[in-house]
Amino acid sequence: MASSKEFDVIDRLIRHQAAWGQPFHQDPQALGIGDDAALIPPLRDGEQMVVSTDMLVEGRHYRASVDPRSLGHKALAVNLSDLAAMGARPVACTLSAGLRDIDEPWITAFLEGFLALAREVQCPLIGGDTVGVPVGSPQIFSVTVMGAAPLPNVDGQGGALRRDGVRLGDDLWVSGALGDAAWAVQSGVSDVRLDWPSPRLALGLALRESKTAHAAIDVSDGLTSEIGHLLKASSQKQGALMGARLQWSALPLGDRLRALVDSGQMSWNEARVLAAAGGDDYELLFSAPPSARDELVALSNSLRLPLTRIGEIILSDQSFHLDWRDDQQQPLSSPYLDAIRARGFHHFSDQQ
Amino acid sequence: MASSKEFDVIDRLIRHQAAWGQPFHQDPQALGIGDDAALIPPLRDGEQMVVSTDMLVEGRHYRASVDPRSLGHKALAVNLSDLAAMGARPVACTLSAGLRDIDEPWITAFLEGFLALAREVQCPLIGGDTVGVPVGSPQIFSVTVMGAAPLPNVDGQGGALRRDGVRLGDDLWVSGALGDAAWAVQSGVSDVRLDWPSPRLALGLALRESKTAHAAIDVSDGLTSEIGHLLKASSQKQGALMGARLQWSALPLGDRLRALVDSGQMSWNEARVLAAAGGDDYELLFSAPPSARDELVALSNSLRLPLTRIGEIILSDQSFHLDWRDDQQQPLSSPYLDAIRARGFHHFSDQQ
Repeated sequence: MASSKEFDVIDRLIRHQAAWGQPFHQDPQALGIGDDAALIPPLRDGEQMVVSTDMLVEGRHYRASVDPRSLGHKALAVNLSDLAAMGARPVACTLSAGLRDIDEPWITAFLEGFLALAREVQCPLIGGDTVGVPVGSPQIFSVTVMGAAPLPNVDGQGGALRRDGVRLGDDLWVSGALGDAAWAVQSGVSDVRLDWPSPRLALGLALRESKTAHAAIDVSDGLTSEIGHLLKASSQKQGALMGARLQWSALPLGDRLRALVDSGQMSWNEARVLAAAGGDDYELLFSAPPSARDELVALSNSLRLPLTRIGEIILSDQSFHLDWRDDQQQPLSSPYLDAIRARGFHHFSDQQ
Repeated sequence: MASSKEFDVIDRLIRHQAAWGQPFHQDPQALGIGDDAALIPPLRDGEQMVVSTDMLVEGRHYRASVDPRSLGHKALAVNLSDLAAMGARPVACTLSAGLRDIDEPWITAFLEGFLALAREVQCPLIGGDTVGVPVGSPQIFSVTVMGAAPLPNVDGQGGALRRDGVRLGDDLWVSGALGDAAWAVQSGVSDVRLDWPSPRLALGLALRESKTAHAAIDVSDGLTSEIGHLLKASSQKQGALMGARLQWSALPLGDRLRALVDSGQMSWNEARVLAAAGGDDYELLFSAPPSARDELVALSNSLRLPLTRIGEIILSDQSFHLDWRDDQQQPLSSPYLDAIRARGFHHFSDQQ
């Protein structure tokens, strides 16, 4: 790919963004695409910067046949989901792309999806890089998002939501519904949750501002993995071996899974395995004290976003123990546990 | 690539960095690798964040056979060079890698090179992503650096160095020596300037702090291209069509090129074409008023870094006109001009 074409793409980005009339580009303290580096106006008093980055590889994280508009949306959304899990507000982002060729309609559609979401959440694209990759190689996108969250106070409270704040006795909550994206991956079909994930920024901000949540993480690799990450980080931090007692029938199933169950094409338990270990949900998993239950129900109503209590944090004698319970509060029967473990963490390439 | 292996790489990074005992990791306001996002402690009063990102593709930006330690160094250095061109101090960086396999010795050597430079310039690695790419695909590295520079004062002075500040009558200066890296690329040999570039951070900081430079850019794609970028950005900003009168014999040639000329293996003019249009130098090109000449000579001495005046900014009736002059102040003869144009901008893949 010649340099002149690379610059064409960058120029198009600049025009795209200029057309928004975004405050960022009118701020004399800001500098976007076009110099050696971008300049970000100072954050608000008492804030600090929050940074996350993700790389998406064709054939592994998305199908080559995917709608480029949804892919552009998703490339940014998965990063914003990380900011949401920290309770941070978006500030700016960068996008680097390894492209096989200059396919104008494809790139334009990709950028439309990316920039529409960037505009919606006030996260201007301030820089990036475009490089060529050989024919036969996967295309690659690397996105970095920068956000802002208040610094914690002297007691360590009120700052960004971290993974390591879970406490014994906390409830475990999850937003939205789970498993539809995993079912779409498994079935090779498109799905709005898989292709157009909604980063839960408003929820993350509310949980941080209200100080209701002790810890949070986004559910990208599957609920079970993410609970494990919370327990690992928090057990180390708190110096206590914590596990989770989880209610199998409390798992909030996606509309698609419920329809499949209702029509007899899938059992409840098959659907729950997908919800428990599927991945690609981009919901928030968080822990909060039982005293916050009423407040969280009210928050769910005001955000019009389901928040479901799926379990509680218990003292454990094993590392990262997940104690799944059935409706009779008996340990879940082993075939389902085995199915959850067998799914583990999967990327597209493991399944195709 | 399984998730567990990805996490092994991340865990190794964390251990590597913890071993440094870096202030970042002892700062309660900081959070590095291991959560959904990293937290950067607040910048100093009156500073703003400076962000740059670059993507390196195997076979295009580096050879597969390159020493992985030098590649790790270079992946960070080319980004730090962008911060240097803004007069910014490094704050933190992220690294994402698309890897074909988990080649432990290779990755360890890559990280050693990356982290040694990160430690040297106090730019901790705070996050990243590792993904698998198929056999037969190039490996890809995406680095984002965050730095800090003072905000400009009410007159717009004293802030980060930008491309668009060039003024009529300014001198054009370049640091170090040019062309050795381009010769190494062309000849398929290794070269310290190509493989271990030194980002000119101290120079960039000094130029910004002393307010001697009006504009700066790093010389990554070749001197001629970069002069064009300066003129384009500054002509738009200043509302005047500016060109550059450049002294052919003033170009500072690298040691290797001079040795080749001395031994009769290359002509002076062939060497100068490489210096004028070669690329991969990672020096700083900047403009400064003639009144700053003594100060810049003193700065060159104190930094022990050559600074060479290669031309001046003139009013032009053409866009981005480069008026190369020979020793007799006559227009440079056309074969050399053609050779410069023919080189234009090259990546490895264009030449191999």
